[in-house]
Amino acid sequence: MKLHGYFRSSAAYRVRIALNLKGLSTDHLPHHLRKGEQCAPAYLAINPQGLVPTLEDGTGAVLTQSLAIIEWLDETHPNPPLLPKDPLRRAKVRAFALAIACDIHPVQNLKVLARLRQLGVAEEKVTEWAAWANREGLSACETLVTGEAGPFCFGDKPSLADLCLIPQLGNARRFGVDVSAYPRLLEAEAAAREIKAFADAAPDKQADAE
Amino acid sequence: MKLHGYFRSSAAYRVRIALNLKGLSTDHLPHHLRKGEQCAPAYLAINPQGLVPTLEDGTGAVLTQSLAIIEWLDETHPNPPLLPKDPLRRAKVRAFALAIACDIHPVQNLKVLARLRQLGVAEEKVTEWAAWANREGLSACETLVTGEAGPFCFGDKPSLADLCLIPQLGNARRFGVDVSAYPRLLEAEAAAREIKAFADAAPDKQADAE
Repeated sequence: MKLHGYFRSSAAYRVRIALNLKGLSTDHLPHHLRKGEQCAPAYLAINPQGLVPTLEDGTGAVLTQSLAIIEWLDETHPNPPLLPKDPLRRAKVRAFALAIACDIHPVQNLKVLARLRQLGVAEEKVTEWAAWANREGLSACETLVTGEAGPFCFGDKPSLADLCLIPQLGNARRFGVDVSAYPRLLEAEAAAREIKAFADAAPDKQADAE
Repeated sequence: MKLHGYFRSSAAYRVRIALNLKGLSTDHLPHHLRKGEQCAPAYLAINPQGLVPTLEDGTGAVLTQSLAIIEWLDETHPNPPLLPKDPLRRAKVRAFALAIACDIHPVQNLKVLARLRQLGVAEEKVTEWAAWANREGLSACETLVTGEAGPFCFGDKPSLADLCLIPQLGNARRFGVDVSAYPRLLEAEAAAREIKAFADAAPDKQADAE
């Protein structure tokens, strides 16, 4: 398999954790997002959105969108599972993941921040925007897992929720958010730090890290 | 069951279509987003993000995030299915849905547009921003389904992809996007228009429509 990514992309980071947890190895093909390499025609031919990640499964199939890739990995390589068995519990885990993947990450990604700059928004206001999206979203996420058994977001094993949370906490810190306001999320992060699959997927461990 | 929504919310609209396709009836509890009713403490207690939709299943369970709700409905009420059986096909349908639910809708929702206005961005530039998010995203969506059998996004039956597409096309038109550039998406929309479950879920058919 081949994973098209970028060391700092939190969407690619989610998939790297999933692959590591499943014990699957892939070739990593970096695309430097700040240099616009994701807009090269050869890449757009496999990912018309010009986003990372993209997974090539080795049999000719091309998968896009991190959550769709992770659900596919979980369906085709069920161990260890990344979603609970019970439908209501699955819905809870997915809702948490989507609160990050829909309502935080796309509002503060490179493309949106670049668009703000094009509108003449000052750099400090751009950073404030990104911090706002993270603060507002993570604050809701903290509430979503308060009362859930730990140490991970939903119980004693990592799930899709943790795969989305850990990369997003990294973004929040980069934008200056005080994450100490989210003790339950930090508890999940501390538990994830103990797992090699998470540690090996971190941005600074990737070959294209700067 | 009770569905908390808003006639014009495209995320609530997706869930209304799913409920109708599954033949499930619910009480509809509208929250006027432009008046900020989604931020009332009683609503935040069930949906900490202050977003619609929220589904109460009647047994005390509370579900949030439209795609998590729809996956739950599909798992608990499998007929008619909203996802194919084959894992790779499921991944294609989910990737299309996520391209809308992550990368178009949240970038042009009420909350983000209000934030742009707070930054002093002029009204015409705010509309241009929303049109840009729709144009860029729908253009990629058109490519994702080009070559797929019709008339729906993925074949001869509606799927999660169509549930996300139809509401988004409505938004795109409201922001002045020329949707004639997406003939394959319009083919899916025309097929959906023939189905009562889609027609009954439309914003102008809801009790809170203005």
